[in-house]
Amino acid sequence: MPKISKILIANRGEIALRIMRSAKEMGIKTVAVFSEADRSSLHVRYADEAICIGPAPSNQSYLVGPKIIEACKLTGAEAIHPGYGFLSENAGFAREVAAAGLILIGPTPEAMEIMGNKLSAKAAALKYNIPMVPGTEEAITDINEARERAVEVGFPILIKAAAGGGGKGMRIVDKAADFEEQMHLAVSEATSAFGDGSVFIERYVTSPRHIEIQVLGDTYGNIVHLFERECSIQRRHQKVVEEAPSSVLTEETRLAMGNCAVDVARSVNYVGAGTVEFILDENLHFFFLEMNTRLQVEHPVTEMITGLDLVKEQIKIARGEVLSFKQEDLKISGHAMELRVYAEDPLNNFLPDIGTLQTYRTPKGNGVRVDDGFEEGMEIPIYYDPMIAKLITFGANREEAIERMIRAIDEYDITGIQTTLSFGKFVMQHEAFTSGKFDTHFVGKYFNTDSLKNDNEEEAMLAAITAVLLLQKEKTKIASLSQNTDAVSNWKKNRKKYI
Amino acid sequence: MPKISKILIANRGEIALRIMRSAKEMGIKTVAVFSEADRSSLHVRYADEAICIGPAPSNQSYLVGPKIIEACKLTGAEAIHPGYGFLSENAGFAREVAAAGLILIGPTPEAMEIMGNKLSAKAAALKYNIPMVPGTEEAITDINEARERAVEVGFPILIKAAAGGGGKGMRIVDKAADFEEQMHLAVSEATSAFGDGSVFIERYVTSPRHIEIQVLGDTYGNIVHLFERECSIQRRHQKVVEEAPSSVLTEETRLAMGNCAVDVARSVNYVGAGTVEFILDENLHFFFLEMNTRLQVEHPVTEMITGLDLVKEQIKIARGEVLSFKQEDLKISGHAMELRVYAEDPLNNFLPDIGTLQTYRTPKGNGVRVDDGFEEGMEIPIYYDPMIAKLITFGANREEAIERMIRAIDEYDITGIQTTLSFGKFVMQHEAFTSGKFDTHFVGKYFNTDSLKNDNEEEAMLAAITAVLLLQKEKTKIASLSQNTDAVSNWKKNRKKYI
Repeated sequence: MPKISKILIANRGEIALRIMRSAKEMGIKTVAVFSEADRSSLHVRYADEAICIGPAPSNQSYLVGPKIIEACKLTGAEAIHPGYGFLSENAGFAREVAAAGLILIGPTPEAMEIMGNKLSAKAAALKYNIPMVPGTEEAITDINEARERAVEVGFPILIKAAAGGGGKGMRIVDKAADFEEQMHLAVSEATSAFGDGSVFIERYVTSPRHIEIQVLGDTYGNIVHLFERECSIQRRHQKVVEEAPSSVLTEETRLAMGNCAVDVARSVNYVGAGTVEFILDENLHFFFLEMNTRLQVEHPVTEMITGLDLVKEQIKIARGEVLSFKQEDLKISGHAMELRVYAEDPLNNFLPDIGTLQTYRTPKGNGVRVDDGFEEGMEIPIYYDPMIAKLITFGANREEAIERMIRAIDEYDITGIQTTLSFGKFVMQHEAFTSGKFDTHFVGKYFNTDSLKNDNEEEAMLAAITAVLLLQKEKTKIASLSQNTDAVSNWKKNRKKYI
Repeated sequence: MPKISKILIANRGEIALRIMRSAKEMGIKTVAVFSEADRSSLHVRYADEAICIGPAPSNQSYLVGPKIIEACKLTGAEAIHPGYGFLSENAGFAREVAAAGLILIGPTPEAMEIMGNKLSAKAAALKYNIPMVPGTEEAITDINEARERAVEVGFPILIKAAAGGGGKGMRIVDKAADFEEQMHLAVSEATSAFGDGSVFIERYVTSPRHIEIQVLGDTYGNIVHLFERECSIQRRHQKVVEEAPSSVLTEETRLAMGNCAVDVARSVNYVGAGTVEFILDENLHFFFLEMNTRLQVEHPVTEMITGLDLVKEQIKIARGEVLSFKQEDLKISGHAMELRVYAEDPLNNFLPDIGTLQTYRTPKGNGVRVDDGFEEGMEIPIYYDPMIAKLITFGANREEAIERMIRAIDEYDITGIQTTLSFGKFVMQHEAFTSGKFDTHFVGKYFNTDSLKNDNEEEAMLAAITAVLLLQKEKTKIASLSQNTDAVSNWKKNRKKYI
């Protein structure tokens, strides 16, 4: 079995730190790489060794495979953990790593390649009869053929340009009567935008939920799933709140999706940690979307409910160990919730808000985990993803995980930049979320610039009333407790937010 | 059922914060009380309201029952959580609280009283045939009778003064031949020290482990146990490292001790959270020591392995709810470890080391929980217990909990005062501890002032060697990675300890 005594982490921020923590617990040395913009980052200080690999823009540092490999040679690291993003799903890099005699902690280049392309991914999955969103398998232009297929698929349907992207040439059609007109519009839009009028037709899922299944495979063909994560709360088509388990799955659907995910992984002889993404409709029918061939941002919620450390499992698999558990050994305990704390302004379309963390104090206590890569006084660099931290809570059940998340959000103290913390609290307190009746349209449906304002106004008013009441008490009842005139202290006036 | 919408926490520091967090998650308002020395404490800032109850010495503030009750009246708090220490086991206070029409979150005054006295506790427990350390039930003075009893009990035995305390008049006798001489010495020591020569004789447990069982009882007579905590690592007869489960119990002994603890609780109709303490000998025979009628410092390790929030359970019981689980619903998941981080100097007999927390940064990440009440720049006040924090780690098994504890200790950054962190690392790395073969003599047997020095020297030497090696690399291999001359950064020189 290959020995791994030192790992280079080809990433930055919270995920670099998170990986180093697991390595350290396993007695494995760590090497950080960093761009010039990350010179004083926590991941650099946390590592046993650290190497600067170039200027801030990723394509001059974190995305330059040869520099990463060179840094391994220089430090004697036998393995590379790519984290997520950057080079983590780059099959070319994976091949270079292998050619250099190093271990990439991740799947094979072949698995990355197949799953990295929608068509080859679909083809691989189809061999295992994985359910796909019903629709045309090939692009069509003929309107009569298109109408026939649309009726087969069943309305509502989605017409989308084969050459498309960015929503151009995309049309939702609710009923057969509207089809011809919408098809004409879609084809002409596609023709003018892409010079190609051919389209795909597929079932339009009205109320979609994004559910994904974590899988783990070792090098001996053992593959298990670690249940689902619900990632339906998204803004700008990107996840912002995740949880495990999902509030909507039945045991039957959970089992079916889990088996399905294992089959998808098996279709590419998957090794390591990966995630199979599905769309779930209102009738609990699920359809394969894609497979992510890396550790996901939201992996901690799975760690919380299974008690496993996914990074340690990745490392053990990479050094040739057999999975130490079987599917039947795994079970869900409790409920976990994750909020991505982004440096973004929720009241301004979640646009990144760059600046200095003037105050930065993280919540603590039972059931609260903060994975971050910043400390007070640091800048959020403009070059990278604006995620500051992942705030994770764990409770005996969903209700407790939510209550704990609200408590933790209130404890989190960040000034200097706008963050998604207030948005997270809005979600946790929204009836559609607490009842579990939500889909990927949650933000568009319920969140607007008034969502946070009302909350703040109410709080301000309540605080003002409390202050008056306390003042009255101070004047009337103090002497009885102590000779000290501020026996009922004027704590409210001087009160700083708790750490 | 009594309504509890606001709780006054009659305590300070980490436990006050810890209680408030659970209350907040339950939507219950909190009131802090504080002494003049604690004016800017975190628990004061965290609470919804806060009241100063007098000067720093506890007997002028935290121990003054009438002030606490007055503070409840002033703020409208319906219930009091006493935490641990201070008034938490004071039956007189419990009666005053009830007389004032308030709810004390804890057991009845009667249970406190019976368990607060060794003789009445023993008498109550004996009704349920709880095993006690074999020995005389009444004090004796006659040397012949004493010899007879000693032979019955079996050597080694302990002779201790009936009126005793502080080890005076206490003698360990290994064999019958030595008995007469030691008995004479013990009686004469007891007579001169206490004016009373009568003594007790009991079995001396050579290699004792301190194992305690957490119990929970509701107001309807339902009592369950939440398994054991091992608390054998002590300094100055006080716990400093605790874990759950114990590394030594068999399933059979665990079950027997659990049932026994429930019986002890039943003997006083116990309501709320309590702890039954046992001594365990090298043959896994266990003997009742005492019952603590309050939440224990080390309760978090039980929370980690059961998934329960003990403070929430206490509050639910106090408002008249039935326990929401039965004994058979409870099971142990994973392994938890706790290190009490005291402001003490391990190299100077663990004497308190008072001062300012010049640096104070806590560890984070998967499986790490810090319950504390301080922040950077705060003073450790001389008036109270010098505990700064409880560092708790949780892992899939004992090995992982230990590895995580070492990682967390390394991440913890405290300067300005000496702490037990270094001692904690010594324990976690000691073979007697990792193998599970230890008892309450651990510190006396293995720890001395050289224990930490060696470790530090080795580390310093290793760091020096690494620095030299890195310097060489810097000079020879840099250009290949980047034009930047510090491509292999001089990170080591500028390196601050990670947060």
